[in-house]
Amino acid sequence: MLLTIVAMFLTDIIGIMQEPLLMKLENSVYLQDNKLVIVDRRVLPTTITKIVCNDSDEVAQAIKDMVVQGSGDIAITAGFGLYLSACACKDKPRWQQMAEMEFATKKLISTRPTGYHLTALLNKIITLLKKQDDSKSCSYSHELVANSDIPYHQIIFNYLQEVLKKQNELSQKTGKNAESLLNDGDTILTHCFAGAGLLYMLRYATQNKKKICVFCSETRPYLQGARLTAWSVSEMGIDTTLISDNMSAHCMAIGKINKIFTAADRVAMDGTVANKVGTLQIAILAHHFNIPFYVLAYGGADKKTISGEQIPIEERNPREVLCFNGNKITGEKVKAFYPAFDITHKNFISAYITAKGILYQQDFNL
Amino acid sequence: MLLTIVAMFLTDIIGIMQEPLLMKLENSVYLQDNKLVIVDRRVLPTTITKIVCNDSDEVAQAIKDMVVQGSGDIAITAGFGLYLSACACKDKPRWQQMAEMEFATKKLISTRPTGYHLTALLNKIITLLKKQDDSKSCSYSHELVANSDIPYHQIIFNYLQEVLKKQNELSQKTGKNAESLLNDGDTILTHCFAGAGLLYMLRYATQNKKKICVFCSETRPYLQGARLTAWSVSEMGIDTTLISDNMSAHCMAIGKINKIFTAADRVAMDGTVANKVGTLQIAILAHHFNIPFYVLAYGGADKKTISGEQIPIEERNPREVLCFNGNKITGEKVKAFYPAFDITHKNFISAYITAKGILYQQDFNL
Repeated sequence: MLLTIVAMFLTDIIGIMQEPLLMKLENSVYLQDNKLVIVDRRVLPTTITKIVCNDSDEVAQAIKDMVVQGSGDIAITAGFGLYLSACACKDKPRWQQMAEMEFATKKLISTRPTGYHLTALLNKIITLLKKQDDSKSCSYSHELVANSDIPYHQIIFNYLQEVLKKQNELSQKTGKNAESLLNDGDTILTHCFAGAGLLYMLRYATQNKKKICVFCSETRPYLQGARLTAWSVSEMGIDTTLISDNMSAHCMAIGKINKIFTAADRVAMDGTVANKVGTLQIAILAHHFNIPFYVLAYGGADKKTISGEQIPIEERNPREVLCFNGNKITGEKVKAFYPAFDITHKNFISAYITAKGILYQQDFNL
Repeated sequence: MLLTIVAMFLTDIIGIMQEPLLMKLENSVYLQDNKLVIVDRRVLPTTITKIVCNDSDEVAQAIKDMVVQGSGDIAITAGFGLYLSACACKDKPRWQQMAEMEFATKKLISTRPTGYHLTALLNKIITLLKKQDDSKSCSYSHELVANSDIPYHQIIFNYLQEVLKKQNELSQKTGKNAESLLNDGDTILTHCFAGAGLLYMLRYATQNKKKICVFCSETRPYLQGARLTAWSVSEMGIDTTLISDNMSAHCMAIGKINKIFTAADRVAMDGTVANKVGTLQIAILAHHFNIPFYVLAYGGADKKTISGEQIPIEERNPREVLCFNGNKITGEKVKAFYPAFDITHKNFISAYITAKGILYQQDFNL
């Protein structure tokens, strides 16, 4: 079982924070004594609780339980799960190691079906390991696989360090490109937690002397907007206002919002975006009120997903809608429906901001 | 101060309930030992807590704190507040009684500015009392005021009994008219608590062998949709599903919803509707997805409100958005915005269902 080792009031560590905790993944997901520590996002910011995972099964459970969230962050966390799996079987024959890791990969991938990065990253690792084993003389040029004596867990570890570095660069570049869309005096609305790119965007805006106000919709039932985004943004010294998810249209109608930014758990090749449930309605409302709706798309579209119809929408346990902090909020005979994501057509998206540049509807010609 | 006298688990009384508690106001707002008892809607349905108000100040505080909600129910509750005020000063000279009641009326009216019924009902009572005092020979024909010897509190009491009876008839007739819009197999979405008219509509549908499923959006931050509507509807044996406020568009997009019903805290003469915040976005989304959006308008438009622009939108304490069950859900530096209502233009409303019949956009010609 997952072990909760420490909980302390956030105020104790605020003083030493140079940047929001969630700006870099290594602040909240890291190895310690060959175990994976994950700062539990379900209880931030009131308490910082660290969940310690001893093996890939515990990592899979943590991902399923939403201890960590966000498509890219989930993928890297799962990568560390695979690392733990590789460590556990490092003394076994190579073929057996591979079998165990393929088993762990399947389990990790099954935790969250909607996001793009989880499957992509784990499959990439397996491919990397297999290529090494194929032959020392293979044409694959990656330096890490040039020597087949390197144990699997070491290859995975090195690869994840590279990915962490790349993800941070991706967030910075995406944030920089997104910042070019902001004007001094803008008030933006954001939904759920759009990742470090949003935080970098706001940091660059501040550096460029643009005063930006941020409205965050709370994002029920997990309240990522309230607990992660509003907290992170406010800790950067930015004017931050929380609203309930039913207040978006009113805020747009009375002129409080002039730009909207969300992330995307997956962008299909036809420009369709899967993101946290609630994104679709904000996009339709933005279109109605003629407010630009921007998607932070980081690495861009998933080449394997041709159209939005191919994106599976995860349905989570209805109990999560029926309860708040474990307490039932309705009658015993009431059911619930909990689609965790929704699908937004490109017609409602003003632009897709990636690390490489800004894409528009017409760039998705499928 | 308000006194909480009893809390018991709902399951204890479910067995003896012939109909949902909230189907008739006298089940949850009533006089006992010359005090006003209000069943606290903020904690339903988990517990039934009764708040006892000793005077009109305590009634005003209870209304302000949302112990009771819904424009019509708030008005009658305030009427009982005025009744308590009349009782308290019944031995004073008539002119002094009137001064005290006018003072109490102002205080009670100031509690919730958006709804139509509160001001209308209290002003009606004052007018009634003044007309009695004017002269025994006045042309006003109401039998209750024909004899100026009747004490104020008695007149108010009798009047409120009439209003309660009329409100119930209004709900029944509105429900009956609304039911004519339902087809067997419909799944409707409703927001906040649309009053007893919605419950009567569903009762008539059941009697007419129409199977209706009901989706309720939870209606943050007070969760009236979860706590009041979903509970009441499910207790009637109707298939009830709770969703978070950010799931409406997705449910419409995947074809789960085919009609929408909300109430109106006020309908202006131009057809504009003020209702619980979140109504506007559901109405715009319904328009987008071509789903009929119906307003249960009970007594119809407020003749004194010519246009929607004249309706004041109550802003409540931001703390109510920042907390859940008294626990902070975000960082210390985060502000909040809490508009309690929003304004929906008639273009988004398919029909207004009143006790007298069904009105359409073209019936509001201003």
